[in-house]
Amino acid sequence: MKFITTPVKGMNDFLPADMRLREHVLGLIKETYATYGFDHIETPAMEHIENLTGKQGGENEKLIFKVLKRGRELEKGLERGELADSGLRYDLTVPLARYYSNNRNELPTPLKALQIGNVWRADKPQKGRFRQFTQCDIDIIGDPSIMAEIELIAATSKMLTRIFSEVGIREFTVHINDRRILKAMAAYAGFTPEQYDDVFIILDKMDKIGLEGVKESLLKKEYPAEAVEKYIALFGQIKPELVCSEFCNATCGEYLDQKVPDNMDTIISSVSCMINEGVHLMFDPTLVRGMSYYTGTIFEISIDGYNFSIAGGGRYDEMIGRFSNQPAPACGFSIGFERIVTILKDLDWKEENGGKERTAFLVDEKASPAKLLEVFKKATKVREEGAIVTVQPLKKNAKFQIETLEKNGYTSIKKIYDDTEL
Amino acid sequence: MKFITTPVKGMNDFLPADMRLREHVLGLIKETYATYGFDHIETPAMEHIENLTGKQGGENEKLIFKVLKRGRELEKGLERGELADSGLRYDLTVPLARYYSNNRNELPTPLKALQIGNVWRADKPQKGRFRQFTQCDIDIIGDPSIMAEIELIAATSKMLTRIFSEVGIREFTVHINDRRILKAMAAYAGFTPEQYDDVFIILDKMDKIGLEGVKESLLKKEYPAEAVEKYIALFGQIKPELVCSEFCNATCGEYLDQKVPDNMDTIISSVSCMINEGVHLMFDPTLVRGMSYYTGTIFEISIDGYNFSIAGGGRYDEMIGRFSNQPAPACGFSIGFERIVTILKDLDWKEENGGKERTAFLVDEKASPAKLLEVFKKATKVREEGAIVTVQPLKKNAKFQIETLEKNGYTSIKKIYDDTEL
Repeated sequence: MKFITTPVKGMNDFLPADMRLREHVLGLIKETYATYGFDHIETPAMEHIENLTGKQGGENEKLIFKVLKRGRELEKGLERGELADSGLRYDLTVPLARYYSNNRNELPTPLKALQIGNVWRADKPQKGRFRQFTQCDIDIIGDPSIMAEIELIAATSKMLTRIFSEVGIREFTVHINDRRILKAMAAYAGFTPEQYDDVFIILDKMDKIGLEGVKESLLKKEYPAEAVEKYIALFGQIKPELVCSEFCNATCGEYLDQKVPDNMDTIISSVSCMINEGVHLMFDPTLVRGMSYYTGTIFEISIDGYNFSIAGGGRYDEMIGRFSNQPAPACGFSIGFERIVTILKDLDWKEENGGKERTAFLVDEKASPAKLLEVFKKATKVREEGAIVTVQPLKKNAKFQIETLEKNGYTSIKKIYDDTEL
Repeated sequence: MKFITTPVKGMNDFLPADMRLREHVLGLIKETYATYGFDHIETPAMEHIENLTGKQGGENEKLIFKVLKRGRELEKGLERGELADSGLRYDLTVPLARYYSNNRNELPTPLKALQIGNVWRADKPQKGRFRQFTQCDIDIIGDPSIMAEIELIAATSKMLTRIFSEVGIREFTVHINDRRILKAMAAYAGFTPEQYDDVFIILDKMDKIGLEGVKESLLKKEYPAEAVEKYIALFGQIKPELVCSEFCNATCGEYLDQKVPDNMDTIISSVSCMINEGVHLMFDPTLVRGMSYYTGTIFEISIDGYNFSIAGGGRYDEMIGRFSNQPAPACGFSIGFERIVTILKDLDWKEENGGKERTAFLVDEKASPAKLLEVFKKATKVREEGAIVTVQPLKKNAKFQIETLEKNGYTSIKKIYDDTEL
């Protein structure tokens, strides 16, 4: 029999220590969002192939793991070249849109949803990129007001502060922008609506190529020099405490509903009163966020000193309606769970055991049934006192056994023979 | 665009109330086994197709969801009729054997493993049977002693008592037998080894057809009347407090290593001192358990008054070696997670909220930014005091909104206008 002991390419076996870290982080995530009134929901790993290939998933649609039809359906499918009737989900957004459409009448409104689940992408495996990985999305559906933005940003900042304070990281920056401000700025500079998407793709590279690089790239694409100058000058005005309404009033305000910058100011001032010291909120007109489905506020959180974001999202008021013909406003955050876990692991996160003692009773194989009974009685007593206890045979290579137990947090390890007193 | 709002056939969307129950049960499972020193581990949802079709999975192999090859591999595969390179796991046993082989050098010995994960079977959907469902397996690999059986049965009894006491169920029966005793009894009656499997299949129907039915079925198969008589007479001696060694000594003892019934007695007496009142341990010579891989002790737990088991398992000392050529003794329990959840739901399990208050602030859409700030300050304060708080817009249909919140456990619901005092 041929048996392959390695996992499927690009996928992981999680060892006990990996799982302790992952479960600990998941616990903090669940607990924090619960405090903000988010409900945990779940969808199946598989989705109808039609839903996955509906052009909502962008590049991810090329990476679908498709599930083969079965029985007579497969025979029929082979003739027509349609081999798959379903596939593994590549994100939690498409399933959420389907879920909301399917269960709308039974869900609270607004729905404040926390999803934690695996997604699968047949990506080229590389360091830190896996073919199965855990995503964590929080979304508010049915709330058109900025309360959704405020709750999402506040809860997520809180969650990150709780998790990372365990490894001494306490400084984060929340970048907030609005797709409508992005557009107003481009209009103010003199770009036409058809040019926006291309301009934003270039702007999005700011953190890599700098403001000068953005300018050069725009000029290289032969955009009018005047528009490029005016556009670049806008970004020269950015400073940490930039007030959105002041910035817009002084520049692109005429291309914008006054509510947009006013709401931005309210979001920032409201979130400010809910977050821990160390979390910096910043109106950031350079923030673009790639996905085309965003319609309003967009946001990203980065750890100060790390040059990538660990959470990002925004408002997408039109997507649910595109899926179900029943529109609903929506706003959401996607948390980089695997990235968080990787950072904690790199920083040598240590479990605190939740204050629980770990005791191991290693019993000699010649111990009598009466002794065994005594051991288990003792184990039961210690467990009832709140400690973790393992009872196992004393191995011949006790040194290795004991070392392994110590590595796993066991502080009290006792060898037990027939004449050992307990 | 064609978009299908229902989940894939036979799979479930979980609503917030479903998830609260599932997460609560999972929490108790994780917490209880942790106390007994079990480590949580995890394997990917997908396995190499070779591992899934190696004839270890019995009937389940017919139910595999196969994953289509991709790109050039698929083109090549189409020519050869090999379309799939992997599949979704149909149980957690095959992945555990692979995991242990793959990670052996980094794992403690014995490994006490808790696995919780989804499995997929393209079964005919029917009430209570799904195509994606959660399995929960606990296994001890590398412990040849009865300490493994004792820890497994004690921990599982404890876990079930904790979960079911919340709906008033406190009476369980743990049925314990040993494949070697089963065989000794058949030998004592006069059956030949080739007949054992068939005899056990008939015996396994005892709970449905009764002792008389078993007798009739055996006679109908033309087994010698004398053997059948002697076999049936054995089961006539069963009583609740049957002591295994006494039963074996008086009957099939000569076909059995004396250690087997002695160990059974020690297992039962040791577990007895670790479990709650209401859990009845029973040496049950009628227990068969279908899977062919069991080599020694077998066990099942049922709720008194329900005619099915909610957890079952046994010792399978030869399976790991068959997978990896590196033998290791193993013993495990599989918990009927979906069945447990269904029973709790049917009995109208109510969340206790973990003692947490739930407060909703419903804010009028005309409230000023200053009022909003006040609301979020108040929300932060209440959250810091340990309560769950949601802030959301006051809907036009406030009656329905409030009813939904009440149904979800919100006891304090406050409508907030610009002039409301907080």
